[in-house]
Amino acid sequence: LSDDANIATAAVLLIGDEILSGRTKDKNLGYIADFLTARGIDLKEARVVSDEQAEIVAALNALRARYTYVFTTGGIGPTHDDITADAVAAAFGVPIDHDPRAVELLNDYFQQIGREATAARLRMARLPQGGEMIANPVSVAPGIHIGNVFAMAGVPKIMQAMLEEIAPLLQSGTPVLSHTIEVHIGEGDLGGPLKTIQDHHPDVSIGSYPFESRTGFGANIVVRSRDQAAIDRAVAEIEDAVAGLHDKPAVRPWI
Amino acid sequence: LSDDANIATAAVLLIGDEILSGRTKDKNLGYIADFLTARGIDLKEARVVSDEQAEIVAALNALRARYTYVFTTGGIGPTHDDITADAVAAAFGVPIDHDPRAVELLNDYFQQIGREATAARLRMARLPQGGEMIANPVSVAPGIHIGNVFAMAGVPKIMQAMLEEIAPLLQSGTPVLSHTIEVHIGEGDLGGPLKTIQDHHPDVSIGSYPFESRTGFGANIVVRSRDQAAIDRAVAEIEDAVAGLHDKPAVRPWI
Repeated sequence: LSDDANIATAAVLLIGDEILSGRTKDKNLGYIADFLTARGIDLKEARVVSDEQAEIVAALNALRARYTYVFTTGGIGPTHDDITADAVAAAFGVPIDHDPRAVELLNDYFQQIGREATAARLRMARLPQGGEMIANPVSVAPGIHIGNVFAMAGVPKIMQAMLEEIAPLLQSGTPVLSHTIEVHIGEGDLGGPLKTIQDHHPDVSIGSYPFESRTGFGANIVVRSRDQAAIDRAVAEIEDAVAGLHDKPAVRPWI
Repeated sequence: LSDDANIATAAVLLIGDEILSGRTKDKNLGYIADFLTARGIDLKEARVVSDEQAEIVAALNALRARYTYVFTTGGIGPTHDDITADAVAAAFGVPIDHDPRAVELLNDYFQQIGREATAARLRMARLPQGGEMIANPVSVAPGIHIGNVFAMAGVPKIMQAMLEEIAPLLQSGTPVLSHTIEVHIGEGDLGGPLKTIQDHHPDVSIGSYPFESRTGFGANIVVRSRDQAAIDRAVAEIEDAVAGLHDKPAVRPWI
């Protein structure tokens, strides 16, 4: 759906041992996916890497070369395991240092809340050379915007606030529209007709997602495109096909 | 924690447009992470790719060359958008065809549940040459085991059942142990002492994860290692350091 050169693409890079160990269950990817989809930006890939600089650098460089935008989460706090700022600088091959604007912002904030400007706290005022701050309306310590990379906090509430700050900078496009048809027919009976319809309608993307609910087994058939008329045409054909299968209800489970 | 050559490593590859569009919120990564951590296998990386064969092949080949095991989820159902089996075959450079054992298994099952053996249903009996079936106690249609790759269903209930089938095949190791110290001290005050302790204890990995709960703000300090004595030594030093910071409670938010 995004071979159109005018459509921006994106990747997400989740940084943190705690996700790979299972300790923390990520909630950021789904949120960012919804955010981008609503703005017509195609999220093409996501990765999760550990808190190791070489891993972060390799992933960042692979992704930033390939997609319009890269959004990272995690690793921008005050403790020693927060190494994203350094990794971003290394990926871009630039030095990193305390940024006077960020230092002033944080010093003012620490004074206001009665907290000492420790070296750890001031780690959060370091920016790669050429980087800009992403405003943080929740806890002030900024994210990092450099090139096509946006490094955000891992705490969902802060990450979400930073995304709103970033939104005006992004090239939005026509959102991908979708129409979902919920059926209680086995995917094994839907499969043939759906393939035929997909082959006849290369201008839409048809997905089938089986589900189990209190009302029984079934599948959600999702038709996606940036062109509503194209969706309508495919949906009409799918509804015809589905009507012919009403004697083939889905049975346990998803078959 | 896994530079030890005797410790197996792993990657997870989540396959599916529905995760990248935000329609489906993935629940498999966290489950697999917990499963591997409990067995002493180090999950080192995860990726999410779309339902495009070239993307799946590229990710699979990068990951299977680098880690002991690769676990994929999604794309092994009966509909046209289920292309994981073909992508696995392409990644290994082998042909794919209906496997007589899988065909028999599925035909028996379809007969038992009164369902026609449609071409779509029999797509689920295709295996890359040299591949073995992963038993599916939930809905019979098998996963695929070839080389160091395990291709599993995307439906969490089926994926979880397949993981149990796979478990005996995996080289388990000493699990990484962890000890969590919950503190209500600002990370900006913890940061200095924690770094010093981490530097003195390279045999453990210390992470700090801020939280907000009904009782206020704080951080979970997590000490991880395969060596309980090493954890105990680091924890003792952290508790000493924390005791000296009792006058520096965390304030809104996570600072």
